[in-house]
Amino acid sequence: MTFHRMWAELLPIGRSPVSGGYHRFAWTGADTDCRAWFRQQAEERGLAYETDRNGNQWAWLGDPAAGDAVVTGSHLDSVPDGGAFDGPLGVVSAFAALDELRARGVRFARPLGIVNFGDEEGARFGLACVGSRLTAGALTAAQAHRLTDADGVTLPRAMEAAGHDPDALGPDPERLARIGAFVELHVEQGRALDLSGDRVGIASAIWPHGRWRFDFRGEANHAGTTRLDDRRDPMPPYAETVLAARREARLAGAVATFGKIAVEPNGVNAIPSLVRGWLDSRAADQESLDTVVAGIEKAARDHAAAHGVDLDIVRESFSPVVEFDHVLRDELARILGARTGVPVPVLGTGAGHDAGILSGRVPTAMLFVRNPTGVSHSPAEFAAEDDCLAGVAALADVLEGLART
Amino acid sequence: MTFHRMWAELLPIGRSPVSGGYHRFAWTGADTDCRAWFRQQAEERGLAYETDRNGNQWAWLGDPAAGDAVVTGSHLDSVPDGGAFDGPLGVVSAFAALDELRARGVRFARPLGIVNFGDEEGARFGLACVGSRLTAGALTAAQAHRLTDADGVTLPRAMEAAGHDPDALGPDPERLARIGAFVELHVEQGRALDLSGDRVGIASAIWPHGRWRFDFRGEANHAGTTRLDDRRDPMPPYAETVLAARREARLAGAVATFGKIAVEPNGVNAIPSLVRGWLDSRAADQESLDTVVAGIEKAARDHAAAHGVDLDIVRESFSPVVEFDHVLRDELARILGARTGVPVPVLGTGAGHDAGILSGRVPTAMLFVRNPTGVSHSPAEFAAEDDCLAGVAALADVLEGLART
Repeated sequence: MTFHRMWAELLPIGRSPVSGGYHRFAWTGADTDCRAWFRQQAEERGLAYETDRNGNQWAWLGDPAAGDAVVTGSHLDSVPDGGAFDGPLGVVSAFAALDELRARGVRFARPLGIVNFGDEEGARFGLACVGSRLTAGALTAAQAHRLTDADGVTLPRAMEAAGHDPDALGPDPERLARIGAFVELHVEQGRALDLSGDRVGIASAIWPHGRWRFDFRGEANHAGTTRLDDRRDPMPPYAETVLAARREARLAGAVATFGKIAVEPNGVNAIPSLVRGWLDSRAADQESLDTVVAGIEKAARDHAAAHGVDLDIVRESFSPVVEFDHVLRDELARILGARTGVPVPVLGTGAGHDAGILSGRVPTAMLFVRNPTGVSHSPAEFAAEDDCLAGVAALADVLEGLART
Repeated sequence: MTFHRMWAELLPIGRSPVSGGYHRFAWTGADTDCRAWFRQQAEERGLAYETDRNGNQWAWLGDPAAGDAVVTGSHLDSVPDGGAFDGPLGVVSAFAALDELRARGVRFARPLGIVNFGDEEGARFGLACVGSRLTAGALTAAQAHRLTDADGVTLPRAMEAAGHDPDALGPDPERLARIGAFVELHVEQGRALDLSGDRVGIASAIWPHGRWRFDFRGEANHAGTTRLDDRRDPMPPYAETVLAARREARLAGAVATFGKIAVEPNGVNAIPSLVRGWLDSRAADQESLDTVVAGIEKAARDHAAAHGVDLDIVRESFSPVVEFDHVLRDELARILGARTGVPVPVLGTGAGHDAGILSGRVPTAMLFVRNPTGVSHSPAEFAAEDDCLAGVAALADVLEGLART
């Protein structure tokens, strides 16, 4: 069974022997090994292999120049200490679905492509979906040239070190114009399918989401000798804001997370001068997200004022809602419903994807495979083998439905 | 005016041109400069200068071997970005008080010593009062040899690099046996004197205090896709614990501070797997401190359980209450009351001091000088010049009262 073999080949690459989590960052050795694996899969199947100007890898059955191609795939890089499924499941399933369709004897009227987008997670250079953003023109070459990792290595130098020419970086409209449909299969990062009892679902939309930085500035002082009434301690208003985020998100059916913090001077016996917390919040629609964030900001300002603490709030990034192409989505629902006899659930997601970047330029859809714990971006990320194989079958059905003669 | 001149000489040493705060860490260049200044003050006054086996500096008027010496002094090192007064005020005031007594023509029946204890703040090696602890036998040479700074430099190597022999480190009971009274003058680290309208006060006790590490362990997960109900997020119970600390401290008239935190993986879009927070708490008596910490621990356990988060609490350090010698304290009150005609306030403090370490071995007392803002361990730490000079006069009175023929 080819899914098995491919999965086993990928499993050891970039895996921490301590945590079991993955460290496959763009243009590192682990990434290079993953990319070599992709190329080998393409060549073993007699597919035409190419790397595009932005470092994304493509494998083609049929001539993409014919246009109206059906493309599937995902990414092979990971977050720090990430799971095995986020990304690789979509790429492995793409090759496995092609094998399945060949076994079925399907012949294709449209070119079929499999893609591995570079640097989806943004773990190294701090920006997600660099490969697809560049291709779609959502990131300029000049912006990409300024991306720098924690060691001060720029993206161009990192690409060069990995044997890729960074001078060619830039938009690739001709390539996108040849794509008639892009379908990305991905492990669900949540428990909606587990709760509904389905193995596979179709994406409706990517929730709008953003990041906000909250700087609470107080006054450093001696923790042992400063009376409570004389303190301007930024930690209590930060704590109030963390709790407000949880409350507001629950009221709106949204999510809000303070997962990153920086404290100065960060000494056990020192009242902090600065507590900087980052809020990540996402909701099903813009109005809900606005309500959540406004509620959190109000709580932060009220509690900061009550503690004599200054507060600055900066929105560091924002992505509006992505509604996937309705025609393609309905087509997927029709194909999968006809095959299984039951309606396939359609669900939103809070996570960003290359499919979200491409959706502005190409008819795009996503398939999700059940995640029994909902855990993602963690070594504990998991999907049952039966569910993965159901995902392969669904992807094969979709590709056959879209592309056969 | 000698106070002025000495103060001006010390001011530039180890001062950050950006913040105006001090970075005088044990056995660094700034510390060496401070120590050279101390030696120069001793020699200019014809005092016998010596460095003891633990790197503490001493200046003697009269022969300490005669015993029953009266010693005053403090320390010259600082916390990171500390103030000008915490430590140096006690050393400068010691030399200034001696000058004042000589100007008064006082003759001494007991040896008079001035001391600069090494590494009081513990900013470099993480343990406070290293010099006095070693001398008092409260820290063994073997323990001291294992102290290491953030760059991996051990205390012995750091002492060696600064020209001091680390092989001699150890208890110094003969030296302590020669001291009949130790009086440390220190800027108040709080606003008690400001609130009572006094320039100078006498210490009653150092509050019992401790440090506790709270490890909240949850589950790393995707901040965008994990439903609130599926989270095991350690940040909300940490936040609840911060607020509980403030509540419990207020109820007990104590202080409790979360000033240091470490979060893993500390990513904007990641629910943390670990939030580690350090509690510093101090109270006027052991029972109050126990009540405060028990209340905080209970809140932490309840909220951790409610969020499905594991919690470990470790007491990292603890110092029981230090009651200063009552006979010496009453003697100081009598001397100062006789001089001014009004009772001098007696106050407790939440801060640790070399005087607290020595108090177990030598009759020990402390004088505090008014701090109008209460700010300490910060570039904003301040004491008015008139109050500093009142401190010098009070210290001179005390030394004269204790030591004159």
